[in-house]
Amino acid sequence: MPSEFDLIRRHFTRPARHTELAVGDDAALLAPRPGMRLAVSTDMLVAGTHFFADTNPEGLGWKTLAVNVSDLAAMGAEPRWAFLALALPQADEAWIAAFARGFFACADAFAIDLAGGDTTRGPLTLSVTIVGEVPAGAAITRGGARAGDDLWISGQPGRAALGLAALRGETGLDAIHHAEFVDALQRPQPRVALGLALRSLASAMLDVSDGLLGDLRHLLECSGTGAIVEVAALPLAALAASGADPALCRRCLLAGGDDYELLFAAAPRHRAEIDALSARLDLPLHRIGEFTPARERLLLREADGGLAAPAACGYDHFA
Amino acid sequence: MPSEFDLIRRHFTRPARHTELAVGDDAALLAPRPGMRLAVSTDMLVAGTHFFADTNPEGLGWKTLAVNVSDLAAMGAEPRWAFLALALPQADEAWIAAFARGFFACADAFAIDLAGGDTTRGPLTLSVTIVGEVPAGAAITRGGARAGDDLWISGQPGRAALGLAALRGETGLDAIHHAEFVDALQRPQPRVALGLALRSLASAMLDVSDGLLGDLRHLLECSGTGAIVEVAALPLAALAASGADPALCRRCLLAGGDDYELLFAAAPRHRAEIDALSARLDLPLHRIGEFTPARERLLLREADGGLAAPAACGYDHFA
Repeated sequence: MPSEFDLIRRHFTRPARHTELAVGDDAALLAPRPGMRLAVSTDMLVAGTHFFADTNPEGLGWKTLAVNVSDLAAMGAEPRWAFLALALPQADEAWIAAFARGFFACADAFAIDLAGGDTTRGPLTLSVTIVGEVPAGAAITRGGARAGDDLWISGQPGRAALGLAALRGETGLDAIHHAEFVDALQRPQPRVALGLALRSLASAMLDVSDGLLGDLRHLLECSGTGAIVEVAALPLAALAASGADPALCRRCLLAGGDDYELLFAAAPRHRAEIDALSARLDLPLHRIGEFTPARERLLLREADGGLAAPAACGYDHFA
Repeated sequence: MPSEFDLIRRHFTRPARHTELAVGDDAALLAPRPGMRLAVSTDMLVAGTHFFADTNPEGLGWKTLAVNVSDLAAMGAEPRWAFLALALPQADEAWIAAFARGFFACADAFAIDLAGGDTTRGPLTLSVTIVGEVPAGAAITRGGARAGDDLWISGQPGRAALGLAALRGETGLDAIHHAEFVDALQRPQPRVALGLALRSLASAMLDVSDGLLGDLRHLLECSGTGAIVEVAALPLAALAASGADPALCRRCLLAGGDDYELLFAAAPRHRAEIDALSARLDLPLHRIGEFTPARERLLLREADGGLAAPAACGYDHFA
């Protein structure tokens, strides 16, 4: 059996694009560009909690990196370097090779160097730390939304949760939507180009990983505002066209996880620019509500005009 | 039961010393000082592989950070920011509080900010990414050792492995040494001050975590040199004074893990400076051999003058 060191070398050593010293020493050496701040985020994915242990390893490799890239996109930062810590129950080389293929496919898509990591034996666990750059003062935090700002969401939230429900046999979907929604679950597309373009437009932003309403609450907490979500403005039709029950579609859109879309606030004067950006990126951007002065108060306005607080939402790993 | 978010906030949010934006957004924002390179390292510790699941959580918190600090020390870098990803089987608040106490004790000892992280449910797993700074061109890599350089080791390698053997009932130790060696195992002291002081003296360096000879092999591979280790120069007496079997002491010194001492190469002209540094830091620095031109050839010279290759050494998690 090849040794740990051989396995790492064989599958995780690729030429670095912009790293002074990468994999193989006690630490990597990075040279940030002048005037840049570093944006750093860490995520841990555990088999049985975040994914099935028998998940296709190539898709898992993509997703492991993509969810971290999404965190940087949500800051308006450019991803540059990744670090991967990996616990594996055994040294299964075919698994490692497929995982590395998916991981590097995502790294290549965003010009990210894998600059270091750690491999060890243990229950299947993946931990990525991603490091990116953003000009000083340009990062988009969660704390800048103001009453009167519009509330926007990118792409099509709810697809990943419907894809998961279909894989679990909890709903039927027509064949085309089944493939699309499972792909959204397994190969999320982090919105890096959108995040960069929003630096001068968004006043606050985060990526939606635990459900739209739950993550919106984090934005409200950090910004000290409230929000009203317009149900009629939500992109429900594209989900309902899949054949799934409309109530399930609504639940997945508002509270499903794994979207990795960007939820952001922007002043109304930026509407035309944001619509133009949507066209340029070929990515739907939906204006789904507005921020209010009512501190942390989240309300849904139904199509009939009725206003009500949503039921519990969001995902707590220990709840 | 408090929610995941409450737990994180309560125990892992401390005032940041030098972080522009820390825990609580999609990513942390760091402002590296001008002229600095960033040194970044990641380690993952898994219950059952690296520590017993019932290990004292305060000691574990210290060690989880300390082993990462040691990696930066080995580059001659100054630790500045840490990121902690944590999988826990349940939200045991007493455990989390004790772990955080130990973790922050180490963070405070080295003026490190915990700048971000992730908490999730899963088999007990700890992954730290540490970020430090080193002036451009000043990092000490594994690749700079030259034939004729002296081989040095800091402190007292072998103590942690003897402490572990004692905890497992594999050896007796007198009471004073038992306490000292178990402490070395549970609260390793990363050699940061030494690493910084060696920037102008050492030609190559790494930290010894998997056994002195095994890690020395990595230095030889990276530097393209060989080495002869002088058995008579090894600090064996201090281990043997514990009452443990001399053969076990030798094995622990040469191939035991968890030392977190610095192994380094330095030109002979630096001997007096290194001895003075040892006095200044009140830390023994042992000159235990020399580097040779024989590519990757590692030999031990016994006290009787006989030269021989050591038996297999080092630790492979999948072997």
